[in-house]
Amino acid sequence: MLEFEHDSLAQRVLFGAGKAASNLAAEVTRLDAQSVMVIAGPAETELAESVCSEIEPRLMYSDVVQHVPIETAEKARAAAREHDVDLLVSIGGGSTTGLAKAVALTSGIPIVAVPTTYAGSEATNVWGLTESSRKTTGVDARVLPTTVIYDVLSLLTLPVKLSVASGLNALAHSVDSMWAPRADPINSTLAVEAITALSSGLRDIKRDSASQSGHEQTLYGAYLSAVAFASAGSGLHHKICHVLGGTYNMPHAQTHAIVLPHVLEYNAPYAPAAEQRIAAAFGTSTAVEGLWSLRTELEAPTALRDYGLKESDLDEAVALVLEAAPASNPRPVTAESLEVLLHNVWAGTTSEDEGR
Amino acid sequence: MLEFEHDSLAQRVLFGAGKAASNLAAEVTRLDAQSVMVIAGPAETELAESVCSEIEPRLMYSDVVQHVPIETAEKARAAAREHDVDLLVSIGGGSTTGLAKAVALTSGIPIVAVPTTYAGSEATNVWGLTESSRKTTGVDARVLPTTVIYDVLSLLTLPVKLSVASGLNALAHSVDSMWAPRADPINSTLAVEAITALSSGLRDIKRDSASQSGHEQTLYGAYLSAVAFASAGSGLHHKICHVLGGTYNMPHAQTHAIVLPHVLEYNAPYAPAAEQRIAAAFGTSTAVEGLWSLRTELEAPTALRDYGLKESDLDEAVALVLEAAPASNPRPVTAESLEVLLHNVWAGTTSEDEGR
Repeated sequence: MLEFEHDSLAQRVLFGAGKAASNLAAEVTRLDAQSVMVIAGPAETELAESVCSEIEPRLMYSDVVQHVPIETAEKARAAAREHDVDLLVSIGGGSTTGLAKAVALTSGIPIVAVPTTYAGSEATNVWGLTESSRKTTGVDARVLPTTVIYDVLSLLTLPVKLSVASGLNALAHSVDSMWAPRADPINSTLAVEAITALSSGLRDIKRDSASQSGHEQTLYGAYLSAVAFASAGSGLHHKICHVLGGTYNMPHAQTHAIVLPHVLEYNAPYAPAAEQRIAAAFGTSTAVEGLWSLRTELEAPTALRDYGLKESDLDEAVALVLEAAPASNPRPVTAESLEVLLHNVWAGTTSEDEGR
Repeated sequence: MLEFEHDSLAQRVLFGAGKAASNLAAEVTRLDAQSVMVIAGPAETELAESVCSEIEPRLMYSDVVQHVPIETAEKARAAAREHDVDLLVSIGGGSTTGLAKAVALTSGIPIVAVPTTYAGSEATNVWGLTESSRKTTGVDARVLPTTVIYDVLSLLTLPVKLSVASGLNALAHSVDSMWAPRADPINSTLAVEAITALSSGLRDIKRDSASQSGHEQTLYGAYLSAVAFASAGSGLHHKICHVLGGTYNMPHAQTHAIVLPHVLEYNAPYAPAAEQRIAAAFGTSTAVEGLWSLRTELEAPTALRDYGLKESDLDEAVALVLEAAPASNPRPVTAESLEVLLHNVWAGTTSEDEGR
């Protein structure tokens, strides 16, 4: 029996190599914007100038801080008010998009996002703010960018390591959305297309870091992954990564890369339809085989002990994940099974290794 | 090189067997509607009463006429004004949804659509009105239903012939969207999923006209087909059907069923990526083989001469299609090639038969 609720979000995507400047100018005209605030961190100044070469921004704003501290958000909000801003243009990664979202959250000013990583925040209605070093997140229709402009030329210079880490983070969005709390067949369809694109795109980037088609496929896959993830919500994988990142300060992208195959291995026998679709997307006979072989080829990190996680932290981590694990996970989540899973994540071993 | 523009439309889909009444009540509450106008034709009166059993409509409106004549629209608009309507609920097929859209077009009142066929109008922002027996269509964000409530129980009593005709019409939406003017990889992904669902669902319905899973798959596929079609626009297939339907009064669903395989055969060699994806969706080695075998199994009609098209009409039809054919069609459209195609459509033969 087919039963689901699905909310499609309204968004315009303009995808084209070397077309960021002309696409942005067309959007500024279409939206009839009179006072544009461009948000781009210091590292993106040059890129921002080139992307804005066909418009006349009222304000170039570069005070971008990771995780969007509330003070940073307040300053940006004040600047937007002061300049009667009617369009926000964010050029950068997750923190830059995040700052634009923080301004949109209280002002309702529309956003045009020009992403420079595979993080995917531009395709979601989720905002995040950090207050007194505590991160709050929420969902609000106003923070979803009206338009996303993807231009692969701004990603060609990304180092392979960053591309791989960011791309595997995107892959985690799509794989986890196959069984997340609001998983539905539409999300799964987009996720499967994303896995196919990411798997081929990341392999191309690994062989040639400046491969345009590799980055195009990865960018396209990262977008669809974020759409699927925004709709399906956080599954077991994201709950585990949230605990490991938040409590033990594990690095974001590496944690995702390390944890994902273990969650896939854990759920696959209990989610046969998802397993088959993921396998087909990888073009391998099983989903687990497809993900391990991609990871091996990409030389992705394998063990969280390499990033400072202590074996003595695992008991507490098990307890924290147990509290957060989604009730809808296809395989029941128990303390015993989490102990094995998190030990493998820590040691870089697989259940099969353990069984030997 | 990957280059596209894609507009995702905001829509909420509630899919569940036997849940129409409770889903509708939940939406009326969520949208805080105080004065609901229910539009349902005389044939749907009983269904409408059951679907509305948990709400208190201000007005039950049944004056639905095919192709939405402007006089019918004006009367419905006046009724909506008179009753201070703040939510339109359409329960029925394309003409019923169409009347709700006509009211929304001038009033901006949101629509909750409860479809009873596989026509797909509920997933598009396209409206149509007939004035002095001339049909005008247009695109407007206001006519896109806010929410679609799919309840397969209202389709189980549809006669097999109608299900097949309406389902093949949906299939034409997805196949044609693979090469329509605004075709993009996102539309294609949804179309391919739709083809898989329709192909399996329609086969189940053919074997058992009351198959719940068959109707669920067909309904799901019809929805995705309409989403893909709304975004991709009319391809060669729809231009041909428009000429044959409009000029020679050929029946809508049968025309789609008859024309589609010929357009697929025509374009397939020039659109190898689309061809492969369609074949994979059918689970056959070629797309053409998949569609012919589905059509044969469904005993779909094969020749337009059986519906009164005259061989002497074909020359004029060629000229009219030639004018309307999209420039973006993967295979160039010439008078010579159209002559062969339309002759096959008329006679129910294939190019292969002709070549023998």
